Amino acid sequence: MEWISKSNVLIVGLGLMGGSYAMALKRLGFHVTALDARREAIDYALAHDLIDRGGTEPTADLVGDADAAIFALYPGVFLKWIADNQHLLRDGCMLTDVTGVKGCVVYDVQKKLRPGLEFVAAHPMAGREVYGVENADDSIFHGANYIVTPTESNTPAAVEWCKELGRLLGFRRVSVLSPEEHDRMIGFLSQLTHCIAVALMTCSDNRRLVDYTGDSFRDLTRIARINDAMWSELFLRNRDALLEQMDTFIGEMTELRDLLEAGDEEGMRAKMRLSTERRAWFDK
Amino acid sequence: MEWISKSNVLIVGLGLMGGSYAMALKRLGFHVTALDARREAIDYALAHDLIDRGGTEPTADLVGDADAAIFALYPGVFLKWIADNQHLLRDGCMLTDVTGVKGCVVYDVQKKLRPGLEFVAAHPMAGREVYGVENADDSIFHGANYIVTPTESNTPAAVEWCKELGRLLGFRRVSVLSPEEHDRMIGFLSQLTHCIAVALMTCSDNRRLVDYTGDSFRDLTRIARINDAMWSELFLRNRDALLEQMDTFIGEMTELRDLLEAGDEEGMRAKMRLSTERRAWFDK
Repeated sequence: MEWISKSNVLIVGLGLMGGSYAMALKRLGFHVTALDARREAIDYALAHDLIDRGGTEPTADLVGDADAAIFALYPGVFLKWIADNQHLLRDGCMLTDVTGVKGCVVYDVQKKLRPGLEFVAAHPMAGREVYGVENADDSIFHGANYIVTPTESNTPAAVEWCKELGRLLGFRRVSVLSPEEHDRMIGFLSQLTHCIAVALMTCSDNRRLVDYTGDSFRDLTRIARINDAMWSELFLRNRDALLEQMDTFIGEMTELRDLLEAGDEEGMRAKMRLSTERRAWFDK
Repeated sequence: MEWISKSNVLIVGLGLMGGSYAMALKRLGFHVTALDARREAIDYALAHDLIDRGGTEPTADLVGDADAAIFALYPGVFLKWIADNQHLLRDGCMLTDVTGVKGCVVYDVQKKLRPGLEFVAAHPMAGREVYGVENADDSIFHGANYIVTPTESNTPAAVEWCKELGRLLGFRRVSVLSPEEHDRMIGFLSQLTHCIAVALMTCSDNRRLVDYTGDSFRDLTRIARINDAMWSELFLRNRDALLEQMDTFIGEMTELRDLLEAGDEEGMRAKMRLSTERRAWFDK
């Protein structure tokens, strides 16, 4: 399948991400159908012209004519949907997703999938600290990264199709990583940073701190308002990679702590110079 | 001394903070003199009308008529300046500072000071990731906190004078803490966050990460570009308070890590809910 305007796109899971996909694709001229367990999510999306039609249950009517299906579900729900409902999808339908961890999802879905269907996984690295289709906003894709994580069982044409979706949605950069490379990278850049924000916020119950806080504390804890159901599942499904990153970070913190306790000024300065030098890479 | 326009203000140390004080005070109509070891800093400030006069050496001429002296120096340099040059200040001159740690500075300066001079310490909680008078900008005070840290040896009039300076400079909130309360607070909100940013940045030498990074990693490491001379001195001078904060944080990170390893989803979610609840205090 190519991305031809007027073709039928099914979005399963109409939260912030599913809703933002819907907004972008409908604007591009696709015929957008959505499924979500929450009736209010569907009603909101219809009332705000984010989708053409929708429902709370996967029926042959809603699912059967999809040229492409995009899954914006928690990993466990996604796997169950495929097991229960893939017979409703027509042959040749292309599948992709938005899941934030890959190794634990991609192979399982591909293994479950019947012949005639192909799944190419992708991770749109965009988000906000708010949830639900009511906050859908496709401008979150601009300037963000979109990563396709194909496996050996994917066809080159399907990988190209999935990359084209990222470009259509308006992502700044579309790239390809293996599921394993992706999960190590995301364990460090995204999951570890959320762990740090949570741990920093649980350190102190002093409500007066807010009177004295500056930008640095606010910046480090912005992501400490966290969807506990979603992130705990993502952490558990990337457990080994995240544990490795947490151990490395705790080790670095402990080294810095020991340098301070020992009064090793030059040792601390060397760490700070290394940090300054590396952070400069990110300012380009 | 009251803050009367046209009175003489001496600023010792013309970096980012001293320069921003100079900019604000000159605009308010004070006669501003500056001292800095760097000739270029003085020349720049004269050329850009940040000060009325200045020099690289403390002479009777430059120092003797000051009604107020503001010290924007590293703690060690500040203490030495007082020992070497306080005889040049006239009786009744009011002293204050901008130092980011208090317990290790305030009492030593007050002990060293001759009768006829009074020092009230203050911490303007404002800053940028750039340095030098060339980046001076008094708009960094707007919306920021200014904390006065008096001791038992200060007079009520001098504390009021120091608070008034904060209001004149345009700080959003002027408050009073003991030096010890200040150092615990700053150890947590500012120093610990800088340690975290440095440790996170020293975890990985993978240059390709920059291609995939999102907002959260950028936010957590913005302050990882760090003046190593200044911050290592501030850390060492607040060693006990900072060590306590680092140990608490490392403990929280380790708890979260152990919950993940044990697969304790409910335990992780409880931490995340606590974090979310507390972070909401900071959004008011």
